[in-house]
This record gives sequence, structure tokens and C-alpha cells, in this order.
Amino acid sequence: MFDTTTPAAPVVPTRGRLRPLGLDEVRITGGFWGDRQTVNGQATLTHIESRLESEGWLPNFDLAAAGTLPAGRRGREFADSEIYKFLEAMAWEIGRTDAAADSDLEQRFRRVVDRVAAAQEPDGYLNTMFGRDGQGERWSALQWGHELYCLGHLFQAAVARMRTRPDADDGLVDIARRAADLVCREFGADGRDAICGHAEVEVGLAELGRALGEQRYVDQAALFVERHGRGSLGEIEWGRSYFQDDVPVREAEALRGHSVRANYLSSAAADVAAETSDEPLLDALRRQWDRTVERRTYVTGGQGSHHQDEAFGDDWELPPDRAYSETCAGIGSIMFSWRLLLATGEAQYADLIERTLFNVVATSPGSDGRSFFYANTLHQRTPGTPADPDATSPRASSSLRAPWFEVSCCPPNVARTFASLAAYLATADDDGVQLHQYAPSTVRTILPGGRVVAFDVATDYPADGDVRVTIADDVEFTLTLRVPSWASGATVRVHSGGEVTESPAPTGTVDVARVFRAGDIVELRLPIVARAAAPHPMVDAVRGSIVIERGPEVMALESTDFGADAGEAVFVGDPIERDGQVVLPVRHRSSGTVVDAPLVAYHDWARRGPSTMRVWIPSM
Amino acid sequence: MFDTTTPAAPVVPTRGRLRPLGLDEVRITGGFWGDRQTVNGQATLTHIESRLESEGWLPNFDLAAAGTLPAGRRGREFADSEIYKFLEAMAWEIGRTDAAADSDLEQRFRRVVDRVAAAQEPDGYLNTMFGRDGQGERWSALQWGHELYCLGHLFQAAVARMRTRPDADDGLVDIARRAADLVCREFGADGRDAICGHAEVEVGLAELGRALGEQRYVDQAALFVERHGRGSLGEIEWGRSYFQDDVPVREAEALRGHSVRANYLSSAAADVAAETSDEPLLDALRRQWDRTVERRTYVTGGQGSHHQDEAFGDDWELPPDRAYSETCAGIGSIMFSWRLLLATGEAQYADLIERTLFNVVATSPGSDGRSFFYANTLHQRTPGTPADPDATSPRASSSLRAPWFEVSCCPPNVARTFASLAAYLATADDDGVQLHQYAPSTVRTILPGGRVVAFDVATDYPADGDVRVTIADDVEFTLTLRVPSWASGATVRVHSGGEVTESPAPTGTVDVARVFRAGDIVELRLPIVARAAAPHPMVDAVRGSIVIERGPEVMALESTDFGADAGEAVFVGDPIERDGQVVLPVRHRSSGTVVDAPLVAYHDWARRGPSTMRVWIPSM
Repeated sequence: MFDTTTPAAPVVPTRGRLRPLGLDEVRITGGFWGDRQTVNGQATLTHIESRLESEGWLPNFDLAAAGTLPAGRRGREFADSEIYKFLEAMAWEIGRTDAAADSDLEQRFRRVVDRVAAAQEPDGYLNTMFGRDGQGERWSALQWGHELYCLGHLFQAAVARMRTRPDADDGLVDIARRAADLVCREFGADGRDAICGHAEVEVGLAELGRALGEQRYVDQAALFVERHGRGSLGEIEWGRSYFQDDVPVREAEALRGHSVRANYLSSAAADVAAETSDEPLLDALRRQWDRTVERRTYVTGGQGSHHQDEAFGDDWELPPDRAYSETCAGIGSIMFSWRLLLATGEAQYADLIERTLFNVVATSPGSDGRSFFYANTLHQRTPGTPADPDATSPRASSSLRAPWFEVSCCPPNVARTFASLAAYLATADDDGVQLHQYAPSTVRTILPGGRVVAFDVATDYPADGDVRVTIADDVEFTLTLRVPSWASGATVRVHSGGEVTESPAPTGTVDVARVFRAGDIVELRLPIVARAAAPHPMVDAVRGSIVIERGPEVMALESTDFGADAGEAVFVGDPIERDGQVVLPVRHRSSGTVVDAPLVAYHDWARRGPSTMRVWIPSM
Repeated sequence: MFDTTTPAAPVVPTRGRLRPLGLDEVRITGGFWGDRQTVNGQATLTHIESRLESEGWLPNFDLAAAGTLPAGRRGREFADSEIYKFLEAMAWEIGRTDAAADSDLEQRFRRVVDRVAAAQEPDGYLNTMFGRDGQGERWSALQWGHELYCLGHLFQAAVARMRTRPDADDGLVDIARRAADLVCREFGADGRDAICGHAEVEVGLAELGRALGEQRYVDQAALFVERHGRGSLGEIEWGRSYFQDDVPVREAEALRGHSVRANYLSSAAADVAAETSDEPLLDALRRQWDRTVERRTYVTGGQGSHHQDEAFGDDWELPPDRAYSETCAGIGSIMFSWRLLLATGEAQYADLIERTLFNVVATSPGSDGRSFFYANTLHQRTPGTPADPDATSPRASSSLRAPWFEVSCCPPNVARTFASLAAYLATADDDGVQLHQYAPSTVRTILPGGRVVAFDVATDYPADGDVRVTIADDVEFTLTLRVPSWASGATVRVHSGGEVTESPAPTGTVDVARVFRAGDIVELRLPIVARAAAPHPMVDAVRGSIVIERGPEVMALESTDFGADAGEAVFVGDPIERDGQVVLPVRHRSSGTVVDAPLVAYHDWARRGPSTMRVWIPSM
């Protein structure tokens, strides 16, 4: 079903150190992420579709087609984008599950596309909020209108469709192409010298250009990227940094302002740097990534400390209290890191992706796939109230996972990420295959010279650190395995023809280059044990505290296990593992009682009902 | 000039433990607060008047009178209130300086009153934002419209006028009376069962009722107070606690939600409790005050940790990073504490007033009285940019004092507080006079039985802890002196007829009861030395840090003195005083260099240009 010349992956740069593999080449077959993919496909997509309908955001397109807007339009100015992210999620899910043309999923996909198509104007314009009598004029509200932002998500949906069902005749790609042409006409070098208040069209245009071989779209993306930092969006209460319109992209020192905007823009800039071989731009982005990760990123990988403007704070401003750490910012950070990984091959980017996947993205959805965290605090001081499963929650203010939000960017963002997750596991280059993330999976790709590399990955990761790669066929290639930065003492064993060779696997990456025989096993043994880590001394808010981690998972202390307010806990000893549980000796501050408190993986907090919780546990 | 039966003070309860003294009875004659009163009278009032004019907020009243609104109306929905706070400030200033009827100040006051009067509707309604063709209907937007809030400030202005110039014929009191009558008709027991989204009308009505002897107004205030907590304002993103509409006042456990609203409402509830001898309500307010001060108040006295909703956080949620600590919340806290002090006579309320005056209210205005902090952070991580002296700043986002804000509640709030400050220094009861705050001042009042108590206070407080009270005439009374909670080891000496008697003065209050002779001196010696204090262990954000205080002043480390980013400082020894400066041995975290860093009083930070600053200094 796949076009074998282009991987069925969200990001396919023309050049770079690593080549992405598509959903046709990597499949997750179970385990931690496989379970989440199943719930996503079975429950979350249906839940989202139902909400898009009942909230009126999808019917907005019908009203547009009927010519009756603005009467009856519902939702915020960016509501259209959720339909596009939902389409993107469905497209990846169709590819992931290889759904048939007459499958329910495929038919639902086509019905939504039909409704979107009917709303498109003859000249390609597509937005339910602007351009009609009684609405604002097209492009008249770039600061907050989100018109280009919505189109960026349309483009990403079309790319997902094109790369998973290249021969589909539903028309989504044509819709996207006509809209992209309009954007180029309106905002090209001779058009409006302007940008959108929320970066996203850039990353959508760059990928659509790659997918369609349309250099004009890539050039337009580059234009938008370079137009940031000139203050053209005007001043707002939180400053121009909110839009990343304070400093040109290549002159910035760190990600700043609204954390989703910042990551989407940085992702697009990385795309532009790759397409234009712009090494200075790539270097600038890598420096910004370094500083952002060192000084502006929570231990969970979460980004953005401010509720008010959903923004990064200053360097070292990382209070666990009301950490915002928006789910979408985590996804944006993965998008940015993934592009830097493809460009450079450096393991640090995959390390952050792993940290963010396990501790931000996996935290958001409820176990049933029908409720979500919008923000991901690191310290819950009061037990929340369970969200009404039928209600829509104010953004980010629910203390427990909620079914939907007035601003509901996160649920479909999680859905599209889960559906396409296999694309982030492995890459290839001329010499071999690189495994970046560990999950039960199958990999099959063709290297230059027609070498077919195929293997299975078996693991209980992250519960256990043993990862066994079983080679399917005789072939010479280099298997590169990431050794996470926390995994000192890791080893790699090669089982071949009854012999076992063991070598140390220092953190970073380890290469196993050989002529493999069918049945050979490469076994990576990562030491997964609970460990305590101290904060960077410049982070004021967690001074005198520790965090417990186990493998890629950050642990949390919940009142459910502690039997008292988590705010009362003071750690008095090292974490131990007992009966498969991480247990921390803690003193109850007020009573003085010392207990062994079981910890939970942070992504599992608040799954057993309202609780107080803390990730950083004080020593005093 | 004063009506001697009612003190010229902002708050005059019908009953309570202590009787307030008015501006005719207490005068500040110099020193720390005297200097600020001078700058306030000479610069700040003119500055505010000029801005109210140039921003169009005062001209809005002219447009209302001309019948041309809504065209040309400028400012936010609460802009009218700033004119009323300005009138209140001028009224107190006229009283404080005993300005003549033909003085410039008096004439300016009357001109503003005339413009306000011309805008009042025949039925007493007064608001430039509502009620005309093209505007929202009266009382149709109680959640955010601020109509009643604005009137509350009008009432406080009228009270100030009435108590300082009871015979004035400018008409302000009539304007207020007609508006208050309208409010009682519209919102009385048989009227709309509703409240305003921002408490303030309650405290205004209660005092107007007291001043005019109109029990109806006090009853209406009580109605409004009791109507809080029923959710009648509806739900918003930040929850009903924002408006204190989540829980009835007498059932709440702590101040919560928007910190200015919370303090204004609590002040009104204290007024209602006093007027109705409602001991359960008073007890509830005292418990809420206790918990709020223990768990939700910064070491500066500042309240409100959230930028997003300008709100209190949870218990112990007091990050110095982006501490909001709005200037108006500090003033609101003083209003609330003052009412509890009058009701109970307990020194703890005067302690908090002192802490908040020196470390929040005194921090806000620039030395020239023409720039202000809106928020008062306890940790500045990046040096700010000096505000454009001609520009209007977004609310709370300027990192240095700014001349004016889009939401400019704070400057006129500071102005009215400074102009009336003498009323917060001393009180009386049947037996004597209580001195709560120490400043060079004169006090003269008449106790029951016609005993005239008069004395001068001489002090360099807070630079020095010696306070000398010189009695003017022979009289028997009890002089009660507050001994601040930090002043352990204080002593009191009585100099009389060549003899000196010294006694220890434990913290709280100390009574000196005797038959005084003219020229007797009561000398309070408060040990003012730099001291280090540890935070409450439940406050996570400052764990492992200390704060240096000296007398009532909180000290801060500024990069200006440290020679490096204040974020790099680690304290390595006790504070010492050298050449009149408090000096703290600190290590530069990165370089390891140890220096003796001079500290400044927190209220003086950022007066020498942009800097980084911290109040809590880490030990590790």
C-alpha cells in the first residue's frame, strides 16, 4: 500500500544525517506504547470525533458550506485546527493498522474530508472564522486569528494521508495544495510581509513541499521563519517574545515565550535549515536547544512554567508549583528534537524525546483514552475534583484529567502522536539502522545496495532494561543502539552461532557492525534501577529536594500511597525496589512518623482518584 | 475645620475595641513616611491627575455629560474608579495639609467633582461605560462590568471629603448619596439578588452609612457580603473563588481567589461584623486572617502568588519567582488588618500592617512619586528595561517602576493610602492611647471625661529603634506601645522628674499607665539589628534559603551591589552591620569568590537602574 520511495513518516527531510523510517517499516507490536496505541485507536479517536461533532467545531464546516456563517459558529478561532489534527491522527492510524479502503476508519476519514472540502472557497481559502459578511476580513487578525496556524495543521494532515495512502482519491491533498497555493500568493515575497501569531503553518508548508516536491512551499516556510523577530505582530501585555517575534530565529539564545509556538517555530526552522543546508541556522537551533534543555525544561521533559501566557520562564525558573508543562509543548519539543536528531544523529535528542514521551505525553491521557491533562504540574497541593465526563473544562484548570477543553489542542495532538509513534523509533543511514526508542516492534527496511535489514525487538521496557533484537535474515549492516544518559553500566551482548560476545555500552550510542546471520541476537542490557537525582543548584524552587527516577520514568509520591498530604513528606533514605515497586523511606513532617512510601511513575499519577502529589521530595 | 465628633479617618466603626483617631488628631511630621507623604502631595497627585486627563478617563465624564458616549470613551471598564480614588486621595491630602478653601488643591478637587457631577444621571446612576445607546445595559455585566465597584470608590471618596471638610459645598457627598440610594433600590432585599464581580461597593457603602448615619447603606453592604459564595456570578476559567463567590464569607477557611477582591470583601465583612456585633462572623474573619498570614503571605506582607488570575495560591504556594504581590493587594490587606485591629486591639494586626507598609506599599512608588510597581516580585532574574516615562505599561509586566498602566489601580491606591496614613498610627480607648506605628508625629486627642492627651513622637525609625514620646500636658492615661514580633529584647524607659525607670517590653504591647507630667518622656527601645530568618518548612520554593530582615524592613540582594547576577549568590555567614549598611558574606556560585555584599531594603530595590534581585538567599 505504501509508496516505497517515501517513508510513511511525519518528517522526511531531503538531507540530513539520518533517514526516517515509515510506519510501513517500523511497527510497534505491544508493550507500553503498543497498549497506548491500541487505546488511542479504539477509544481516543472515537472520543475526539464525537466531541468535534457535539462541540460544533466540525459542523462549523457544514455551516460554511451552506453559506450561513457566521450564525451558529461555535468554538474558538482555532477550532478548525482540531479537525485537521484529528484527520492527521486518523491518517496515521489508517497507515499504522493498514486499514482497508472499506474499513470503518477509512470511511469516517473520508466523510470528514468531504465536509472540509465543501467549506473551501473557490480560491483555496479555508477557515470558518473569517472572510464572510459579519466576520473579520481574511488575514485581518494575524496576531490572534490563527488562520495560517489552522492551515498548517491541514497541511500536516494532507502529508500524513499522502504518505500512508498515496493513491487515495478523497481529495485532502488537493484541498491542502489549493490552500498552500493561496498562502504563497498572499504571503509570498511579493505579498503581505507578515506572519501568523501562532507558528505552525511553517512546519506544515515545509513538509507539504517535501511531500509534493513543491519547492515554493518550502521557500514560503523559510520566508515565514525568517520574518519572525521583527515585531510585525505588534506589542502585547506579555511581550513580543510570546510570538517569538522579539528576536530573529537565528539570533535567539533560547526558546522563549509561548512554549508550543516556540517549539513549532523551532521545528520549522530545523526543516528550513535541513532543506537549505543552512549550517549557521542549524547551529543556532542546536545552541538554543542546549540552553533550553539545561535551564528551561522540567525533569519530566515538560516545558513552559507560566500559566498566564503558557510560556517559558527565565533561565532556571522551574517551580514545580503550577508547572504548566502543557502536553502540546511536550509534543512540540519532541517535534523539534526529532528534527535535530535526523539532522545530526546525536543521542541527546533521542534522550529528551524519550524523557518527554514517558513523562509528558504518556501522562496526559487517562487509561481509557477519553480524558486528558492539558497541563502537567509537578506538585499538586490540593486533591482535585474528578472532571464531569460530559462537561468541557476550562483550559488547564482541571486538577484531574478532563474529557475535553474549551481550548482542546491537546487531545488530538496526543492522538496524532500516538498513531505515528512508530516513526520515531528507528532511522537508517547508508551503513545501517539506528534504534532510538525501545518497544516491542518489528523493523524492516532496505539499505543502499538493496540490503534488506529486518529484525524484531523484544523487551518489557521500561519495566525491564533488557532489549533483544533478533535478526531475521543474513545481512551485513551496523545496528546502532542508543544508550540513555542515565544508563551507565549498560552492556551489549551479541548471540551468534552459539557464541556470546559481551561489551560495555557507554552512554550515547553503541554500534554493532557485522555480517549478521538469521537468528543472531543483539541484546542491550540497560540497568533500570531506582535512582535519586539532585536538582541543578540554580533551580531555586527545588533546592534541598531530590527526584527519584527509574529508567526513563520520573517517579512521583502520591497521597494515595503516602496516606497523607504529599506536601508533608521529607525523604530520609535511598529508594529501594521491593516486589516490583519503588519505595522511598519518608518522614511525615508534622507527626515525625517514618514510613516506606511506594512511588508511582509520574505518568500514572491521579489515575486512582484525587490526590496530592509531588515529584521533587524535600530533604529538610 | 474638622467635625470634632467624628474622626477624620477612613474607617470609623460604631463599636469595637479601639477608636480610630483622625488626621486632625495625628500628624506625621517627617521621617520615612513624612518624606513619602510630601512626595505624594507634591508629585504623585499631579502625576495622577495629568494621566487621568491624558488617558481620557476623566474626559469620559465630560463625554457622558455632553451625551456623546459611547463615542470616544477610553480606558477599561473600571476607569471611573481611578477618578474616585484620586478624589479620595485629594480629600485626605486637603485634610492632612489643612488646605485653605482657595488653595490650588481645593480648587482642583472641586473642578473634578464638578465634572463627575455633570455625568450623573437624574436617578443617581453614575458610570461612563454602561446604560447609554450603544453601551451595555445597566447592571447587565455584573461579572466583569465593575459598575458597583466604581461606586464603592465614589463612596469612599465622599467619606474622605465629609470627614475632612464636613461643611464643604462641592456636592460630592450628595452625588454619593444619590448613587447609594439607587444601589439600595436596585439591589436591596426586594431588588436584584446579585453582587458585583469585584468587591468594593460593600466597604464603600458600610463607611458611607457610618458617615451619614444611614443604616440602610450598612444593611445593603451586609446584604452584598452575605450574597457572596452562592455562585451567582457564574463560572469562569479560574473558578468562582476568583470572585470569592465559591463559599459564603463566614464559611471560608482562608482568603482565596483574586487577592484584591478577597481583601476588600474581607474588610467589608469586618465592617459588617462590627456594626452588627456579629461575633461569629468576626471570629471567622480572624481565623481566615490567621491562616492567610501563616500560609499565603510573602515575608514582605505581599499577597497573591499568581500572575494569571492575580490570585492567592494554595497554602504554602509562595514562590519568590514571579511573586505577584500586587501593590493594591497589600493595601487591601492593610484595610482588612486595620479593621481587625480596631475590633480586637491585638498587636498582630498592626504587625502585619507595618510589614506590608514598609515592604509592599513603600516599594511601589519611585523616589520621584511618578512611577510605580504594580506587582512586587521577590526574585528578579533578568534586569529590566527602564520604562518609557511617557508610555503606559501593560499591567504588571514592567520589571521596573512604570509611570502608568493600562490597569492603573495601584498609583491612586498608593496616593490615597499615603495621604491618609496618619490615621493608621494611633488609636484611643477609654483609658488611653495606643501607638501602633512609629514615625515622627504629633498626637492630640480627648479621652472620656475631657482628658486631653497630647504628645510628640520623635524617632529615626526604622533606621533606628529608639522612639521617644514626649508628653505635652499633665494627664493620667495609659500609653500603649506596640512591640513588634521581631523586637525581642525591647525595653521601655520612662523619664519623669529627673528619674528614669526601665522595664522590659515583651513583644505584643506594653502599657505605660500613670499620671504623666508635662515633659515626661516614654522611650521605647526596639533592638533594630540585621537578623537572618529561615522560611516555614512547608514553603517549598524557598527551602534552604534565608531572608535578612532589619527591624520592619525586609532586605534584598541586588546585582548592583553584588557585582553579579543575584541568582549566583549563596550566603556563607551571618549578616553584619558596617558603616550603616547591612552586609552579607556571600559566595559567587560559579566562581567560588566570597564577597561581603551590601544589602538594600527591599523597598529600595531597582531605584538605581535595572538589576537582578533576590530576597531569599540560598545556603546551598
